[in-house]
Amino acid sequence: MNTFGKRFRLTTYGESHGLAVGGIIDGCPSQLSIDFEAIEADLRRRSSGAPRQEEDRVEWLSGIKDGITLGTPIAFCIRNHNARPDDYATLEHLYRPGHADYTYEARFGVRDHRGGGRASARETVARVVAGAIAKQAIGPVSIHAEVDTLGPEGDTRGGIVNCRIDGLRAGVGNPIFGKLGALLAQAMMSIPSAIGFEMGAGFAAARMKGSEFVDRWAPHPFSHSATRPLTTTNHCGGVQGGISNGMPVEFRVAFHPVVTLPSEVECLSDEGTLVPTTIVGRHDSCQVLRTPVIVEAMAALTLADLLV
Amino acid sequence: MNTFGKRFRLTTYGESHGLAVGGIIDGCPSQLSIDFEAIEADLRRRSSGAPRQEEDRVEWLSGIKDGITLGTPIAFCIRNHNARPDDYATLEHLYRPGHADYTYEARFGVRDHRGGGRASARETVARVVAGAIAKQAIGPVSIHAEVDTLGPEGDTRGGIVNCRIDGLRAGVGNPIFGKLGALLAQAMMSIPSAIGFEMGAGFAAARMKGSEFVDRWAPHPFSHSATRPLTTTNHCGGVQGGISNGMPVEFRVAFHPVVTLPSEVECLSDEGTLVPTTIVGRHDSCQVLRTPVIVEAMAALTLADLLV
Amino acid sequence: MNTFGKRFRLTTYGESHGLAVGGIIDGCPSQLSIDFEAIEADLRRRSSGAPRQEEDRVEWLSGIKDGITLGTPIAFCIRNHNARPDDYATLEHLYRPGHADYTYEARFGVRDHRGGGRASARETVARVVAGAIAKQAIGPVSIHAEVDTLGPEGDTRGGIVNCRIDGLRAGVGNPIFGKLGALLAQAMMSIPSAIGFEMGAGFAAARMKGSEFVDRWAPHPFSHSATRPLTTTNHCGGVQGGISNGMPVEFRVAFHPVVTLPSEVECLSDEGTLVPTTIVGRHDSCQVLRTPVIVEAMAALTLADLLV
Amino acid sequence: MNTFGKRFRLTTYGESHGLAVGGIIDGCPSQLSIDFEAIEADLRRRSSGAPRQEEDRVEWLSGIKDGITLGTPIAFCIRNHNARPDDYATLEHLYRPGHADYTYEARFGVRDHRGGGRASARETVARVVAGAIAKQAIGPVSIHAEVDTLGPEGDTRGGIVNCRIDGLRAGVGNPIFGKLGALLAQAMMSIPSAIGFEMGAGFAAARMKGSEFVDRWAPHPFSHSATRPLTTTNHCGGVQGGISNGMPVEFRVAFHPVVTLPSEVECLSDEGTLVPTTIVGRHDSCQVLRTPVIVEAMAALTLADLLV
Repeated sequence: MNTFGKRFRLTTYGESHGLAVGGIIDGCPSQLSIDFEAIEADLRRRSSGAPRQEEDRVEWLSGIKDGITLGTPIAFCIRNHNARPDDYATLEHLYRPGHADYTYEARFGVRDHRGGGRASARETVARVVAGAIAKQAIGPVSIHAEVDTLGPEGDTRGGIVNCRIDGLRAGVGNPIFGKLGALLAQAMMSIPSAIGFEMGAGFAAARMKGSEFVDRWAPHPFSHSATRPLTTTNHCGGVQGGISNGMPVEFRVAFHPVVTLPSEVECLSDEGTLVPTTIVGRHDSCQVLRTPVIVEAMAALTLADLLV
Repeated sequence: MNTFGKRFRLTTYGESHGLAVGGIIDGCPSQLSIDFEAIEADLRRRSSGAPRQEEDRVEWLSGIKDGITLGTPIAFCIRNHNARPDDYATLEHLYRPGHADYTYEARFGVRDHRGGGRASARETVARVVAGAIAKQAIGPVSIHAEVDTLGPEGDTRGGIVNCRIDGLRAGVGNPIFGKLGALLAQAMMSIPSAIGFEMGAGFAAARMKGSEFVDRWAPHPFSHSATRPLTTTNHCGGVQGGISNGMPVEFRVAFHPVVTLPSEVECLSDEGTLVPTTIVGRHDSCQVLRTPVIVEAMAALTLADLLV
Repeated sequence: MNTFGKRFRLTTYGESHGLAVGGIIDGCPSQLSIDFEAIEADLRRRSSGAPRQEEDRVEWLSGIKDGITLGTPIAFCIRNHNARPDDYATLEHLYRPGHADYTYEARFGVRDHRGGGRASARETVARVVAGAIAKQAIGPVSIHAEVDTLGPEGDTRGGIVNCRIDGLRAGVGNPIFGKLGALLAQAMMSIPSAIGFEMGAGFAAARMKGSEFVDRWAPHPFSHSATRPLTTTNHCGGVQGGISNGMPVEFRVAFHPVVTLPSEVECLSDEGTLVPTTIVGRHDSCQVLRTPVIVEAMAALTLADLLV
Repeated sequence: MNTFGKRFRLTTYGESHGLAVGGIIDGCPSQLSIDFEAIEADLRRRSSGAPRQEEDRVEWLSGIKDGITLGTPIAFCIRNHNARPDDYATLEHLYRPGHADYTYEARFGVRDHRGGGRASARETVARVVAGAIAKQAIGPVSIHAEVDTLGPEGDTRGGIVNCRIDGLRAGVGNPIFGKLGALLAQAMMSIPSAIGFEMGAGFAAARMKGSEFVDRWAPHPFSHSATRPLTTTNHCGGVQGGISNGMPVEFRVAFHPVVTLPSEVECLSDEGTLVPTTIVGRHDSCQVLRTPVIVEAMAALTLADLLV
């Protein structure tokens, strides 16, 4: 379950304070000329303003020769140069509230307590690298995400990110279980802190009348383009019956606030007692500002899996 | 993409006005005693109040002997006795607004125009049958969904369904791409008309402060039970880092209004003209009242895939 | 594990003396005009000379309209009209030697003892139906299998079937784990009674010198065709590094003799005693004569999965 | 298709003369104490006597902490220290006979010509590392492979390897497409140079009478053990109906001779001409001597996928 996709597939690895994080992309088309600058630009969007300032240098281990993809697996590796595992020594026997410490222990019987281990948002660096390649593989389709809503000031914040995909032809997606909206929902809800997903009008659609909601055909629908739309509204978010209709695909993702609070909290010890603790380590108070590039990456991976 | 799940797997088939709908369940544990009454009860919940009154008689073709599962594929078939394909003759060359007619044509180059064909909500009957078996396979875990919000009166209506899973132990789900919330999101967004999904506090969490959102440990968390909870609140919806924590799993699904409007609408002809049309056929104005059992079925299939 | 393939996928069901056998084909291209005569001809090749004379009438439940595939799942069902479950009453508590009775019990804790249940060669009828459609989907590629060697007369017989695929372009198959030879091996070894598989020179290649084995380039290889080959020999069986080279793909499959002996044998009772028994029921003494069409079906399914 | 397995899954990467080869193991049980000595011993068996003497030092990037598996992906990397890509400069525009040069070009439109690139047997180092971990994960089950037959002296040689799995309980494997023999066949035929596979009596079974072939129950079968067998013979190779019966699982794999001949051969240029060439680089004349550990690795990966 560390693999995303069936045809364009990303398998990721790595703990936050282990030796490295990275991944293998399998199924990337051959003869694709890789724009390494674009990958680095996306990595900078991800790390901009983060408390753990780390130069995420990508080492390319296979699958690319002279800048061209070979059609074989693309393995990449980013070292965790700036790890400070000792910051976390006091947490070895404590489960923080709101974190995955307790659930990982329940699932695996063991965990890497240093900085959240595998549950850390550190792993999203591999998604961003692979997403940047996926963007290049899906060619004229473009994806743009941005922060829509920020949570209130005070301690830590969440927010809502919206995303719009342009240039996707009609006919992409699948009926029944592989609906485009369902695949995007899984992709987005797999991002750390994601807690809600909606297409087009989303939850507001549940409070609309049918006659308000239904997207009407615009005049001359067959000649639709960027300037001449297929429908007069886009409440469905560009997807009908699980398949794209050629309008922009639009969705929003809600993220809960960062769960590492700056104040003292009660942790649960593995002996069952509650222990007042102040969490050290370098933590963001508002990750959502850096999340749009991750949303774009997961959208690109979803589309690459359908299009290549 | 007509298969759901990896271990407990449902593959469905059938067009709305074809010969039959049905499916194959592969991976159901052997030696399970099937409660056929419970399956029929769920089918009645699905069809209660529907305009197409059809006795959904399930024919069991394989995998069960003397009421006991063999561990081999369970194939089942429900005939479409009450099909009226002639109702749809006028739609052969028209794409209704809001429907999947246009996108199926774009995807496959051909479609069964009779009653929506494969895109019809008729296919959910197979999900309900398989979901009812999945409920039995996951034993003490119980799932309950109900309508939370109904859209306004007027023409056709959507709404919001909430769902609560009780009795799920801590440690179920996966890190990274197979997070429990991500799997449930895909499952729910695959239901016809689903347009939004949220876990726990959901979209509202994006507007909370971290200190409001974080679920605090209750006293004596290790002895938690139905009456003694693990945490004092459940804003995370029972899932942390993609893995259940032993609290109830809670989520909500938004459904847009029925897209077959009772009034005349403009359809798009396959020659590109707009044709004012009144849609005949038997259509619901408020499917969401019958949707909770489908939400339960998809939740049960998701959990069976993780638990068996 | 009752599904074969990833893109062109067949899921089968059915016990030998249950209500029906059949399957669902998911991923068949849309707009394919089905030749039902060809399917029936393959079914006759499978049943020709079999002791259980049964008219295998295929009922098509979905996915085809007016003889044209819709791109949706094709479900089909063949009733077991000629079942005689009572023939097997004495075997309910006995495990026959050479059969799968004991292993199914070990695997599932329960089994359908009537005629081998799911382990019966009866299930291959679904493979032949789906294989006949796969042959049509892979277009100009043609597959021909025939009996190469028959076991000796006496009681029951096995044999060797060879198979040749013509018209397959170079470049089909995958490196590493998805080698064309590996996929064909799995496909063939999944046929009941299969016990060996070899490509091209096969086991004999292990006894050749390298200079004997290596296939040399023929003159003007780029213009190779049916009459002008790519290489002067085809010891590799048309596959190098897991990928087709454009020469005919050639392989052989060994089948062990039918394990239902005509004479009295000792069965193992579920209480651990050995019970001399004469097996009744209608059994072939030489299934291998009817096996080439099954070999062709599995080859067609393997290629359809790679080509569609 | 660079992934093997569904539950215990290995994804590999790397070109022969690129930066590194390696893999990710996903699905390895947590809390397994890794015996690194055993892994190195298997790596030495793989490289013993090879012309390219390379210290295969494994770098463990994730998934293991203090020698214990975390249940998260285990990523590993082996640098290609001893690469000599310049040896292959003359082959950039030539396709060697018997090699995968031509087929990779047909498949991908581009290839890494240096030492076979991805098609090199170099990639098996990742299989051996993962196989050594799989052996540890399947506990008391033991796997032993050895050379059975060596091809004749002269130029390059192939041979036959046999393999025996002891300690596997009855009931492992699946009916229909996931038969244990079918899974092992795919695994073995995916090894470079593999060209044939047989279970138990194999091809010889095709020439036996049924009464010779059928394995009879030994006295007191239920108490069978290492010294008291279940059946008096094991012609079926320990598998019936695709499922293990508790007897040793026995199979053989045929390997064709090394295709890099020591003498001058005609290569095909990418312009269509035949070019007499003597292949430089470091090549084995008899890889089969080093193959048993790869056969064991693939058998271990197959079983781990069924057992964990």
